[in-house]
Amino acid sequence: MAGALRDFFRKRRSLVEPVGTEFRSAVNHLEDFVLRGGKRVRPTFAWAGWLGAGGHVDAPGTHNVLAACASLELIQACALIHDDIIDNSRTRRGFPTLHVEFARQHRDKGWGGDPEAFGEAAGILIGDLALAWADDMFHGSEIGTDARQRALPVWAAMRTEVLGGQLLDIVVEASGDGSHGSALKINRFKTAAYTVERPLHLGAAIAGADDALISAFRTFGADIGIAFQLRDDLLGVFGDPATTGKPSGDDLRAGKRTALLAYALESADASRPGAAATLRSAVGTDLSEADVDSLRSLIISLGAVARVEKQIADLTDRALTALHASSASSGTKDALHAMALAVTRRTY
Amino acid sequence: MAGALRDFFRKRRSLVEPVGTEFRSAVNHLEDFVLRGGKRVRPTFAWAGWLGAGGHVDAPGTHNVLAACASLELIQACALIHDDIIDNSRTRRGFPTLHVEFARQHRDKGWGGDPEAFGEAAGILIGDLALAWADDMFHGSEIGTDARQRALPVWAAMRTEVLGGQLLDIVVEASGDGSHGSALKINRFKTAAYTVERPLHLGAAIAGADDALISAFRTFGADIGIAFQLRDDLLGVFGDPATTGKPSGDDLRAGKRTALLAYALESADASRPGAAATLRSAVGTDLSEADVDSLRSLIISLGAVARVEKQIADLTDRALTALHASSASSGTKDALHAMALAVTRRTY
Repeated sequence: MAGALRDFFRKRRSLVEPVGTEFRSAVNHLEDFVLRGGKRVRPTFAWAGWLGAGGHVDAPGTHNVLAACASLELIQACALIHDDIIDNSRTRRGFPTLHVEFARQHRDKGWGGDPEAFGEAAGILIGDLALAWADDMFHGSEIGTDARQRALPVWAAMRTEVLGGQLLDIVVEASGDGSHGSALKINRFKTAAYTVERPLHLGAAIAGADDALISAFRTFGADIGIAFQLRDDLLGVFGDPATTGKPSGDDLRAGKRTALLAYALESADASRPGAAATLRSAVGTDLSEADVDSLRSLIISLGAVARVEKQIADLTDRALTALHASSASSGTKDALHAMALAVTRRTY
Repeated sequence: MAGALRDFFRKRRSLVEPVGTEFRSAVNHLEDFVLRGGKRVRPTFAWAGWLGAGGHVDAPGTHNVLAACASLELIQACALIHDDIIDNSRTRRGFPTLHVEFARQHRDKGWGGDPEAFGEAAGILIGDLALAWADDMFHGSEIGTDARQRALPVWAAMRTEVLGGQLLDIVVEASGDGSHGSALKINRFKTAAYTVERPLHLGAAIAGADDALISAFRTFGADIGIAFQLRDDLLGVFGDPATTGKPSGDDLRAGKRTALLAYALESADASRPGAAATLRSAVGTDLSEADVDSLRSLIISLGAVARVEKQIADLTDRALTALHASSASSGTKDALHAMALAVTRRTY
């Protein structure tokens, strides 16, 4: 994947050079961002979808499919760079976020105007570039006219769904909509469709999978994707900082509207109004370690953790059943089974 | 053009509906923004490029070419929505800018958090959606495999160049780089390539134009595009508010780094240091009408206006010479000639 991405950036140089050093520097930051990191989850699922639907690694043109799958990393670069502006995040993958880095450059050089505004402007434009280049890389990948035709609606759906999920997310956060229905809908579109379901679907469509296999992959992807987000929600409250890389209980301080919190509030509203009031007033504030600890106990005692764990287990079971009943190649079944457990397992 | 865009938005409904009312509302705002307005300059040039290279309005598949050209309006929607965030602009096309509109909704509904931050987040995401949908509309336009193959590198260059030009623009503004070389480079990539040269090139590539015609269109487009921006720079200082819709002398108050200002500073530095100091200290501040008037006289007396007018005339001449020497169809030559004069003529 990294090779395909490096190759794409190399080929872009002839477009970038004429605009000059300022643009080249911005592009270098984007390339570093893309190559440095992440777990390549989306390309890996897309690749698995292709292999599982009959793709062969030693067939001619395999490198074109690899490039099409790798282009998902550029969508993800846009999503992260723009999300970090929206969430005002300071670090990402162990480095300053892009807009923070450009604000620093502005400050170091003693330029005019507001460094933060400059950083955000640069982040918006570099994110846009990543999104445009994702399309260029995908559509330029020469996977063949038929494969491209089959993949086109999946590609369109994936990008629309993740942006729809993100928009829903900011509205739900602002409006304080604490329902578990909204939380699960955000999980569905912002995480599951974008991270697992559509990448698998995309790879399978490129390989020319039949409807039954695509349907199985989509069921697997949607269920595992939601389970993955539910596990992430648990980690955001109960995770070990050494594992998550984030301060313990960070989601509680940030007031993130997760299904976990929704379940806790629903349970409290039904039977323990005092606990509901405590939760509502505490979440989203600057909590001490002791506050976080007592909120954790409260959330557990309200049965919310058990409910989420049960949901993760049910979703994973359903996903694995759909996978194993499908016509996917056996090597891919094993690989997807392992990935499903890896992204949903309890690690705290 | 509006019909093709309306059609595209209609077909997107099946993707938008499942995400829910919040997303549908955001998409409706985008659709209103795209359909409401603008002069459709880029699709018109792309269409002219196609016609000029042998496209026929009554040929089968013409509506597909129209859709491919109309997709440029979605790129422009992203560019404007994100630019308005970057420039902190309050109004656009006679309406509140998108981020201002979403901040208002946030405020009206009494939601939590900062209304301005919410507005910006919504604007970033809706701009991203416009950019992703531009690609979907273009690549879904069924112009044929060969035409698509020819158009692909032009499409890629256009989006890369405009983002490169915008990045250069924010760096030049922040760094206070007052050289006319930088100003002209921004004109070249942010305006000329994106507005005239590449749209013409795109249409011609779809039609299968030969290298000589493409070269002529690109010369015409680059020259007229730069001349158009130079005229816009003059209007930003000398324009009648009734015509431009902006306060008189707005570019002087905003401190915009135009070629006009660069020429004035270069001339002053060479012969009138006092005038140079006056210009540097005044530009970018909250100027009175009288201040603006005296800066105008100063800029004229430094010969900067005459230099820009000469450059516009030279560029227009060169562009028209290339156009008329080309193999473009005669109807298109007439249309492009008229458009060239319309976008570069003196109107104040």
